Amino acid sequence: MSKPLNVGLIGYGFMARAHSNAYRTVNNFFDVPYRPVLRTVCGLVDAEAKAFAERWGYQSHTTDWKKVVEDKDVNLVDICVPNNLHAQIAIAAAEAGKAILCEKPLALNATQGQEMVAAVEKAGVPNLISFNYRRVPALTLAKQLIDEGRLGRIFHYRANFLQDWTISSEVPQGGMSTWRLDVKAAGSGVVGDLLAHCIDTALWHNGPITAVCGMTETFIKQRKHAETGKVEPVGIDDACTFFCRFGNGSLGNFESTRYARGHKALYTLEINGEKASIRWDLHDLHRLEWFDHRDESKLRGWRSIHITDVGEHPYMSHWWVPGLQIGYAETFVHQIADYLEAMDKGQPCSPTFREGLATQKVCDAVLQSAREGRWVEIPD
Amino acid sequence: MSKPLNVGLIGYGFMARAHSNAYRTVNNFFDVPYRPVLRTVCGLVDAEAKAFAERWGYQSHTTDWKKVVEDKDVNLVDICVPNNLHAQIAIAAAEAGKAILCEKPLALNATQGQEMVAAVEKAGVPNLISFNYRRVPALTLAKQLIDEGRLGRIFHYRANFLQDWTISSEVPQGGMSTWRLDVKAAGSGVVGDLLAHCIDTALWHNGPITAVCGMTETFIKQRKHAETGKVEPVGIDDACTFFCRFGNGSLGNFESTRYARGHKALYTLEINGEKASIRWDLHDLHRLEWFDHRDESKLRGWRSIHITDVGEHPYMSHWWVPGLQIGYAETFVHQIADYLEAMDKGQPCSPTFREGLATQKVCDAVLQSAREGRWVEIPD
Amino acid sequence: MSKPLNVGLIGYGFMARAHSNAYRTVNNFFDVPYRPVLRTVCGLVDAEAKAFAERWGYQSHTTDWKKVVEDKDVNLVDICVPNNLHAQIAIAAAEAGKAILCEKPLALNATQGQEMVAAVEKAGVPNLISFNYRRVPALTLAKQLIDEGRLGRIFHYRANFLQDWTISSEVPQGGMSTWRLDVKAAGSGVVGDLLAHCIDTALWHNGPITAVCGMTETFIKQRKHAETGKVEPVGIDDACTFFCRFGNGSLGNFESTRYARGHKALYTLEINGEKASIRWDLHDLHRLEWFDHRDESKLRGWRSIHITDVGEHPYMSHWWVPGLQIGYAETFVHQIADYLEAMDKGQPCSPTFREGLATQKVCDAVLQSAREGRWVEIPD
Amino acid sequence: MSKPLNVGLIGYGFMARAHSNAYRTVNNFFDVPYRPVLRTVCGLVDAEAKAFAERWGYQSHTTDWKKVVEDKDVNLVDICVPNNLHAQIAIAAAEAGKAILCEKPLALNATQGQEMVAAVEKAGVPNLISFNYRRVPALTLAKQLIDEGRLGRIFHYRANFLQDWTISSEVPQGGMSTWRLDVKAAGSGVVGDLLAHCIDTALWHNGPITAVCGMTETFIKQRKHAETGKVEPVGIDDACTFFCRFGNGSLGNFESTRYARGHKALYTLEINGEKASIRWDLHDLHRLEWFDHRDESKLRGWRSIHITDVGEHPYMSHWWVPGLQIGYAETFVHQIADYLEAMDKGQPCSPTFREGLATQKVCDAVLQSAREGRWVEIPD
Repeated sequence: MSKPLNVGLIGYGFMARAHSNAYRTVNNFFDVPYRPVLRTVCGLVDAEAKAFAERWGYQSHTTDWKKVVEDKDVNLVDICVPNNLHAQIAIAAAEAGKAILCEKPLALNATQGQEMVAAVEKAGVPNLISFNYRRVPALTLAKQLIDEGRLGRIFHYRANFLQDWTISSEVPQGGMSTWRLDVKAAGSGVVGDLLAHCIDTALWHNGPITAVCGMTETFIKQRKHAETGKVEPVGIDDACTFFCRFGNGSLGNFESTRYARGHKALYTLEINGEKASIRWDLHDLHRLEWFDHRDESKLRGWRSIHITDVGEHPYMSHWWVPGLQIGYAETFVHQIADYLEAMDKGQPCSPTFREGLATQKVCDAVLQSAREGRWVEIPD
Repeated sequence: MSKPLNVGLIGYGFMARAHSNAYRTVNNFFDVPYRPVLRTVCGLVDAEAKAFAERWGYQSHTTDWKKVVEDKDVNLVDICVPNNLHAQIAIAAAEAGKAILCEKPLALNATQGQEMVAAVEKAGVPNLISFNYRRVPALTLAKQLIDEGRLGRIFHYRANFLQDWTISSEVPQGGMSTWRLDVKAAGSGVVGDLLAHCIDTALWHNGPITAVCGMTETFIKQRKHAETGKVEPVGIDDACTFFCRFGNGSLGNFESTRYARGHKALYTLEINGEKASIRWDLHDLHRLEWFDHRDESKLRGWRSIHITDVGEHPYMSHWWVPGLQIGYAETFVHQIADYLEAMDKGQPCSPTFREGLATQKVCDAVLQSAREGRWVEIPD
Repeated sequence: MSKPLNVGLIGYGFMARAHSNAYRTVNNFFDVPYRPVLRTVCGLVDAEAKAFAERWGYQSHTTDWKKVVEDKDVNLVDICVPNNLHAQIAIAAAEAGKAILCEKPLALNATQGQEMVAAVEKAGVPNLISFNYRRVPALTLAKQLIDEGRLGRIFHYRANFLQDWTISSEVPQGGMSTWRLDVKAAGSGVVGDLLAHCIDTALWHNGPITAVCGMTETFIKQRKHAETGKVEPVGIDDACTFFCRFGNGSLGNFESTRYARGHKALYTLEINGEKASIRWDLHDLHRLEWFDHRDESKLRGWRSIHITDVGEHPYMSHWWVPGLQIGYAETFVHQIADYLEAMDKGQPCSPTFREGLATQKVCDAVLQSAREGRWVEIPD
Repeated sequence: MSKPLNVGLIGYGFMARAHSNAYRTVNNFFDVPYRPVLRTVCGLVDAEAKAFAERWGYQSHTTDWKKVVEDKDVNLVDICVPNNLHAQIAIAAAEAGKAILCEKPLALNATQGQEMVAAVEKAGVPNLISFNYRRVPALTLAKQLIDEGRLGRIFHYRANFLQDWTISSEVPQGGMSTWRLDVKAAGSGVVGDLLAHCIDTALWHNGPITAVCGMTETFIKQRKHAETGKVEPVGIDDACTFFCRFGNGSLGNFESTRYARGHKALYTLEINGEKASIRWDLHDLHRLEWFDHRDESKLRGWRSIHITDVGEHPYMSHWWVPGLQIGYAETFVHQIADYLEAMDKGQPCSPTFREGLATQKVCDAVLQSAREGRWVEIPD
C-alpha cells in the first residue's frame, strides 16, 4: 500500500490546477509508493484560496505561506507562485526539511538560484523543478534514442517557443493573470518563461552549453498595470533569439517570442545527428518525428510516430490503448509519479534545483549577451 | 454546492477506468450540480473488483451486478461490460429507477435495443449511451458549424475507422481483453465496435440514413479462444465497407477494419458541403480542418484549427491555456459534465438510448445488406 | 543518335498541351532511341489549330483527323479528343499501321474498347493509353515495393478522386472546355474521367477486380449547354462510390466526385498489407507515405518519403538534385520516354489498349451495378 | 510574333540545364515578346560542351567564354559557372553590350559585386541575377500579400536552408560537381550558396537589413580534392546561423547548414505580422501557409493553400488545371518570361545586379561578424 504524502500547495493559479490534478490522479494510473494527500493550499485572497480548496479537496487553506512551510503535517511544499517569490519560499521550506516541487524557472537569476541550491543541498531535502515537458512521452523517448547513441555525432540543436498572446497593446502587465509581463514578478520575459523550457530540454538532450550570443527586443514599450491602471515602461523581453555552442561541438539556435501571430504555445525542437534526426512540437505533443539515415535509401523519410503504443512508449502503458492520445495534463502526472518513486528510493529526481540552476545560468548569459551585444561564456 | 450522486459501476475494464477517471475529475474542472460519489464497483472476479475499488476509491465492490441495481443508495448505474450484457442490466436498472450510462453499442441488435428504450422511457429515467467522441471539442464545434448552416447543402459524408491490432492470427477471441472478437459477447465485429461510433456521429451531424449497401469480410476464419484454448470459427466481421443515402440527399461512404496496417485507432471523417467542408481524425483529435469557399479565392485553403482556444472552443474554457491540448480522457469528463447538467434540469442528454437505437438499426441493416448482397432500407 | 519519330496530334486542348510538352522535352532529359518530331496537329477550328501549331512548333495543321491518319510521314497518332471519338480514330490509325497514344479512358464503353483492342492487335501496332499517373515516380516506386512482396498479403485498397469544380449550377455542359459534363461526348461522368485513373492504378498495383457494387448520383439534374445555351438534362454521374473484391482476396473502396468542396484534383490511394502500407495523393505527388511493421516497434510510424533522390527513385536521375520536386508535366515525359524505349525494342508498353479495356470493363460494371442496385461481376 | 533573342550560355552543369529548359519552354506557355534562340554554349571540356549542345539544340559550342561574349549574334549572355568566374565574364559581357543573366550569388564578395554593378549600369545593359525562388508562385503571392499590407507591422522573419549532402567525410572538394566546397571557386560555403537565397527573398519581402550577428562552423576540417586527390583544409563554412535587425523594426533569424540529416533542400521561411503570418518551404513549393488573425476567432487556423488555382495564383494561368502542381523547373521559366517582358519594355527586371549586390553585402557582413564575434552593420 502506498504511504500518504501531505502536500502543501502555495499558489492557486494555472499551475496550481495542473499540479493538483496530478496529485489527485497519479495513484489511479501509477503504482507508486506514496499517495499524495491534499493537506493545504495557500493564496493571496482568502476567498479564492477557500474556493480552490473546496474545488480540489484540500483539507485547509491559508493566506500565509509561512504557515504552510511551518506545518508539521506537510511533507511536500509545492511552489506555484510568481518567480520573484520562489527563492524565499524554497529556502524556508528546505530549512523546514520539506520536500520541494518548484515551478520553473528556478529563480529571478542565478544568484538567487545558487542560494536555493545551497539550501536544499544543505538540508538534504528532495527537490524538483517543474520542467514538465521532460515528461512528454515523445521527449522522453527522444532522450532514450540519444542516450543509445542512435543519432551519432550531433551537429545541430534548434528550438523555438512561439506565442502570440501579447501582440495587442491592450494586454496589461502585472496582476494575477499577467504577472509574466511584469519584470519585477517575472524577472524576465520570454527568456525565463519560455526559453527556460527549451534550454532545460537542450541541456538534458544535448549536454552543456559553453557560450551564447543573443538578441532581445521589447516591441511594446509601455503597458497599463493590471491593478493600478497606470501606464508604465515594460521591463521584460518580448522576444529573444540566441545561438550557442554546446560542449559536444554542436551548434544551437533558439528563439522565443510572444509576437508570432498564429502560434499559441508552439514549442518546437529539432536535433540533427550524423546518423539520425529528431523533431517534435508541443502543438502535437503525442507525435515524434524521426529520420534514420540507416533506413534503406529509397525508403528514407521522416517518420511521424504516434506515441501511443502502450507496450513501447514511455509512460504510455499507464494510460489507454494504442492510438488514443494524452495531452498536457498527463505530463504533470508523470512528473509526480517519477518524483514519488525517487523520493521513496532516496534518489534525486531530475531536473533537480541544481539542474534548474544550470538553465538559469544560460538564461542570465543570454540576457547579458543581448544587453552587451557580444558572446558570453557560461560559468561553471 | 453540488449534490452527491452515487455511482454503481458494472465492469472494471478499459472503459471502467475511463469513466471512473471522469467521475473523479469532473468537479475539479466543471461547475456542475452533482458531485459523483464512487459508491460501488462490480466485476466478475472478486479480487480484481476489490483492487479496482481500492485504486479508484470506490467504497465497496461486488461480483453480482444485481446487487448494484438493487442498491438503494445507487443513483446512477454505469454499464461497462461486454455488449451481450447491456440489455438485461439496463432494463433491470431502469425498472429500479436508476439513471443509466451505458457503453456503446447499445445492444447486440435493434430488437434488444428496442426493449432497452422501452424500459428507460417507461421508467422515465435519465439514460445516456457513451458515444464519447461527440464530446471531442473539435466534433462539437463541427456540429455547431453545421447547425449554423455554414456548409450549405451537403453532398458527401465520409468516415473511416481503421485499426490494425488483429492482423496476427495469434490474437485469440473471447476472454477479458479480446471479447470484442467473440461474436457471442460482441454481437458483431467492427460494425458494432467501430462503425457504431462513425454512424452515431453521422446521424448527429448529418441526419437520418435512409438506406445502406454494405460488404463485410472475415480475413482470419478461426482463432483460439482466450480461455479454453480451443480453435473456433470466428463469427465477427473483421472489416466492413458500406455506402448509403442520407435523408438530406447526401451520399455516405463508411469503412472500418482491424487490418489497416499502420493505423491504431484512426477514426476519420469528412463532410463536403456546397459552401464549406470539414475534416477530422482521432489521431490528432485536438485539430479540426476547415475549408471555406467564401474565403477570398486566392487565399482559400484547408485551415488546421488547433482546438485549444479557451475563449472560443467548446469545453476548452474548463482546461488550460491556448495551445495546450487535451486527449482522450477528457472526452469522458465532458460527457459526464453534460449528463449531470441535463439530469439536474430534467432534460434528456444526447445520445439517449433512443438515439443509440437509431445507430443500432443502421448497424443491423449494414450487416443484413452484407449478408444478402443488396441495399437495405432503414426502418423507422 | 536517336531516330526521328513523326507525331500527328489530334486535339489541341489541355491534354494536347501536356503531350506536346513531353514530345519537345523528352530528349533533353532522357537518352531514348527516338526523337519525336512535331509533324502535324489537327483540331476542329482552323485558326486555333494554326495557333497551336505555331506555339508548339508543329510543322503543319489540319481540321481533318483522317488526313493525319493517312499521312505517310506520321509514325505516331496521338489522340487527345473527347472520349466519343477515340474508337473511330484509333481503329483507323491502327489500320493505317500507326503507333498510337490515346488519352484515357479507352472508349465510351467496353464494347467499343474491345473493337479498338482487336484493331491494334490485328495490326500489330504499338499502342498505349495515357494513364499518366503510373509514371508519377512515387507510384512507380509503390509498384516496385508491391512486386518485391514487401507488403505481404493485401487486405485493403482504397482510392478517392475528389474535385469540386462543378458545384455551381452555372457550369454548363458540352462545348470545348466542359464536354466532360456531356454524356454524349464523355460517356460517363466521374467514372470514366476520374475513377478510370484509380482503377487503372489499382489493377496495376493489386491485380484483377472480380466483382463490384456501386452507387452513383447526379446532384444537378439539368444544365445549360455551353454552345446552344439550351437547358438540358444532365446525363453523367456527378459522383460515384463503389466497393469491390479483388482476385487476391483484398477489399476495395473507391469514390469519386466533383462535389467535394476544397479538393481540386485530390486523387488519393492507400494499400494496407500484412507487413506494410502505402499512401499517396496527387496534391503532393512528389511524396510517398510508407509504414513498415518490420521497423523496430517503438519507432514505427508513417514515413513521408520525398521522392527526389536522384540515385534511388524511379525517373529522378533524369531531373535535378535531391529535394527539388517535379510536377504534373513530367509524368507525361516519363510516359513518352518509356513508350519510345518499348517501341524500339518491339515490346508492349503498359498500359496497352488491352489493359485499358480491363479498366473499361470495371467502369462499365460499376455503372451497371449503380443502375441495378446490385453486385456485378467483371467479365473476363 | 515574338522576336528572336540569341542566347550564349556559359557553363554546362546543373544550372545550365535548368536555364536551357526554360529557354526551350517559355514560348510554349507564355506569350512573351522574345523567342530565345539557343545560339551557343561554352564549357571547359570540348566533348562535353558538344554533347550538351546536341542534347539541348544549341547551334554551336566552344571552350572559350570570350568568344561567346564577343559573338555579335549573341544577345544574352547567361553565366552558369562557379562564383569566382562571374565577375570577369559579366563585366566583359556588359562592355560588349550584352544582356546578362547571372547565376547567384552575384560574386565572391561585395567588392567584386560593386564592379559588376558599375559595369552593367555604365553599359546600360539588362541584367538579372538568378534568384529563381522569387518566381515560385507561392512566394510571389506572399510578396503580393505583404505589399497589400495584409500582415500589418512585421515582428519576425525567419528562414532556414537545410541540407545534408556533405555529412560524409568522403565527399571531396573542388572539381566539376563539388566546387561548392572549394573556397577558391565558391568564395564561401552555405552563406553564398544557400543563405544568399534566403537573404534575397528576405530583402524583397521585408526590406533592408541594418545589422547582423552571426556564427559559422566547419565541421569537417579537411577533405580530398576531387581532381588532385590531395587532402586539403576546407575553407568554406559548413553551417551558419545569424540573427539581424531589419529597417522596419522586425527581427530576423537565419540558419543554413549541409549537416541537417534528413533534409535535402529544405528552404523554409516564416513571416509573423501583427495581423497575419506566412510560412513556406521548398520541399512542398506549391503550397503557402497563411494565418489570418482577422478570421472569425473560433475558426482561425493555418491555411494550407494549394497554389494551383489557374485564375488566381501568380503564373499559374499558364500551366494546367487546379490541383496539378508545378515543380522546380518552372521557376526558371517564370524568370525568363519576366526577363523577356522587362527587356522589351526597357525596364529593369528584379533582382538586378544592384539588388544582388545588396544580398552580397549582407553575406559579407555575416561572414565578418562570424569571424569577429560581434555585430556588423550593413553598409549602404
